[in-house]
Amino acid sequence: MKKAVVLLSGGLDSATILYLAKSKGYKTYCLVFDYGQRHRKEINQAKRIAEYAKSEHCLVKIALPWGGSSLLDKSKKIPTNRNIDHKEIPSTYVPARNIIFLSFSASYAEALGAEAVFIGANAVDYSGYPDCRPEFFDSYQDSLKKGMKQGVEGKAVKIFTPLLNKTKAQIIKIGVKLKVPYHMTWSCYKGGSRPCGECDSCVLRQKGFDAAGVVDAAIKK
Amino acid sequence: MKKAVVLLSGGLDSATILYLAKSKGYKTYCLVFDYGQRHRKEINQAKRIAEYAKSEHCLVKIALPWGGSSLLDKSKKIPTNRNIDHKEIPSTYVPARNIIFLSFSASYAEALGAEAVFIGANAVDYSGYPDCRPEFFDSYQDSLKKGMKQGVEGKAVKIFTPLLNKTKAQIIKIGVKLKVPYHMTWSCYKGGSRPCGECDSCVLRQKGFDAAGVVDAAIKK
Repeated sequence: MKKAVVLLSGGLDSATILYLAKSKGYKTYCLVFDYGQRHRKEINQAKRIAEYAKSEHCLVKIALPWGGSSLLDKSKKIPTNRNIDHKEIPSTYVPARNIIFLSFSASYAEALGAEAVFIGANAVDYSGYPDCRPEFFDSYQDSLKKGMKQGVEGKAVKIFTPLLNKTKAQIIKIGVKLKVPYHMTWSCYKGGSRPCGECDSCVLRQKGFDAAGVVDAAIKK
Repeated sequence: MKKAVVLLSGGLDSATILYLAKSKGYKTYCLVFDYGQRHRKEINQAKRIAEYAKSEHCLVKIALPWGGSSLLDKSKKIPTNRNIDHKEIPSTYVPARNIIFLSFSASYAEALGAEAVFIGANAVDYSGYPDCRPEFFDSYQDSLKKGMKQGVEGKAVKIFTPLLNKTKAQIIKIGVKLKVPYHMTWSCYKGGSRPCGECDSCVLRQKGFDAAGVVDAAIKK
């Protein structure tokens, strides 16, 4: 059975790609990061989603002691009700986050003999992070071809970004068909008992569910 | 003062680039990894070298629980007296190691506002690792331009590989001029009380000192 590493954050997009990868016939190996984010809610949900989906999963703890992001530093304020214009890079940007996550996933994939890495990056309804854009993934794919054993042997692990050019509403419609347990996903940048409803991530999620005409079960918790 | 992140392993090459970066006028921030290698000797030496060089340093602990290398897995044998023909990738290859190290160094550099990352990779007297070759670094540089805030703003952190095309002997001659404390460096893949003299790393080191006509002070310890 072909194998894929799935970067699972516990959010809506990554849960969808886990189910997408499974629907394509991959045996999935979820990679979940504890990277010092403000709260453990998304990590816990990621593990639960992986178990619910009957997927292998691996938690990797890393530290980014230099900070540089409001997602890492509790003394910084998470921006709320921001004008998400896709131009300004907000304080929630974590320097090189996807670059780091992909590097681990490439290592994991090569050690497993997996042929694919799935990442739920999105460049439509997103926060303007540079490492969520198609030109970045194309370039990074090239680095894996040139810097890894599998790449040199002509079978570089392939990075799949199936949600890259989809709206949040389109993603949700795909996920509903695949029976993604959206009630288990956590998107809010803050770690409260309920989603704040005001951070970029909450705003994009709500906008997506509204546009898809789907009720967000997670909000009702 | 311009800033540079220096990937410091505790070995000969990375100690040389630390001194090279300092000689170019950079304030240096060494990044040392505990990545589950077989022994802590090189980590301890890296910290000592950074302190000796009066450089800032940061230790980052990561785990690669999937293994895939004899440098990570003590049940695997480190190859000795191997024919280093630069074609076969040996078992000491760690999947995506430099890719992972560079991703952290890029994050550190951006958070610091550093303009440079120095890595002591070498593609002449080396073990055949794909992530030590010029084509890999060119590609990875492009990924940092496209996937990071500094890159999007036209001031991507620059990866410097000043030793890439040098022989080990040339590296040692540069280091002797810069007064690199080679007696503090540790190259051996094993963690014995003395270098084994037989692994790739010991063989390349000895060959380099011999060709440079320099006595290796570390061996006499």
